[in-house]
Amino acid sequence: MNRKIPRIIIGRLPLYLRALTRLKKEGHSYASSRELGKLLDISAAQIRKDLSHFGELGKRGKGYEIDFLTNELNHILNIENIWDMIVIGAGDLGSGLSRYRGFAERGFRVAAVFDIDPEKIGKKIGNLVVKDLATMCDYVADNNIQIAVLAVPAETAQHVIDDLVEVGITAILNYAPIYIKTPDGVQIEHIDPSVHLQKLSYYLK
Amino acid sequence: MNRKIPRIIIGRLPLYLRALTRLKKEGHSYASSRELGKLLDISAAQIRKDLSHFGELGKRGKGYEIDFLTNELNHILNIENIWDMIVIGAGDLGSGLSRYRGFAERGFRVAAVFDIDPEKIGKKIGNLVVKDLATMCDYVADNNIQIAVLAVPAETAQHVIDDLVEVGITAILNYAPIYIKTPDGVQIEHIDPSVHLQKLSYYLK
Repeated sequence: MNRKIPRIIIGRLPLYLRALTRLKKEGHSYASSRELGKLLDISAAQIRKDLSHFGELGKRGKGYEIDFLTNELNHILNIENIWDMIVIGAGDLGSGLSRYRGFAERGFRVAAVFDIDPEKIGKKIGNLVVKDLATMCDYVADNNIQIAVLAVPAETAQHVIDDLVEVGITAILNYAPIYIKTPDGVQIEHIDPSVHLQKLSYYLK
Repeated sequence: MNRKIPRIIIGRLPLYLRALTRLKKEGHSYASSRELGKLLDISAAQIRKDLSHFGELGKRGKGYEIDFLTNELNHILNIENIWDMIVIGAGDLGSGLSRYRGFAERGFRVAAVFDIDPEKIGKKIGNLVVKDLATMCDYVADNNIQIAVLAVPAETAQHVIDDLVEVGITAILNYAPIYIKTPDGVQIEHIDPSVHLQKLSYYLK
């Protein structure tokens, strides 16, 4: 696979996959770039151009066969199997994420959740028992974990990320409200709901 | 205020604000565009250009006075006061968001949480009691609510959004894993953690 495809294109593939899943649920077998575009507010031309990076995936006049394109995108995005991930932080957010059942059908599973707070360690969250953060490094090594979800306060985030990187985590979904640099070879994505809310409030009267 | 400023610039202002808060906490009084850029991985030139849309906010050679720029950004982003918002959906995610204490210092407060499930209605989440979704319209009208956070399954999201828009909600933070169009004058932001995870998994081996 060509690893030089721009990040912005990779970033749109999960949206295409989500739209395909929706059309499939609605009973469609084929999806045109126009239909996908309407569902995503992305131009049909952009979608065709993005997908053309990965070969001839559509049929002229018929559009994309949903099952085929879904399989291709699952393959490209590397989610043909379920990835185990760990959640760091068993506060409100970490607990919610650990219980969230929506990850499984998208390619992910929370395998363990860690905290540093003695009051939280040992507590049950859904099917998981909160583990001591001190045991995180061993757990990651023993279970070959590559993905961590960070749900800790901003103050401790950098410290935890340093540990995660040292033990070999290469993908981080960061909910701490702070921008954090990671070394080459470690990917990080940031989610901060307040940033989105402040974009919204700008337009309020 | 000039409402024609590109959305992409508005979208970066909350990041600048977050970085300023961090520098302030670390004891700084001034921040240069270079320092902000380093914290955010955005070029100093871009930051200066973005902020220049709002007047002369910095001092040549000294950079931006943190308190002053923070106040300006709070004013521009319309978060000088706390916005009350409602959360729709009292599942794992909605509960987590309703309990989340990080919103207050960023300009927002969950005033009420609603669900349709009789088993959830009346349940306590932090200081809130889950209300019946059937009472949502009256609540929004009586309390002049403008912001809603949507934490419902994809299948019900469009229906709930139609109701929200009808009752006068003009800003929606959508956690349902679905792209939803809103009428002119209604702003929507989408957060879907699985989309971010799939961007990460692309780069995994």
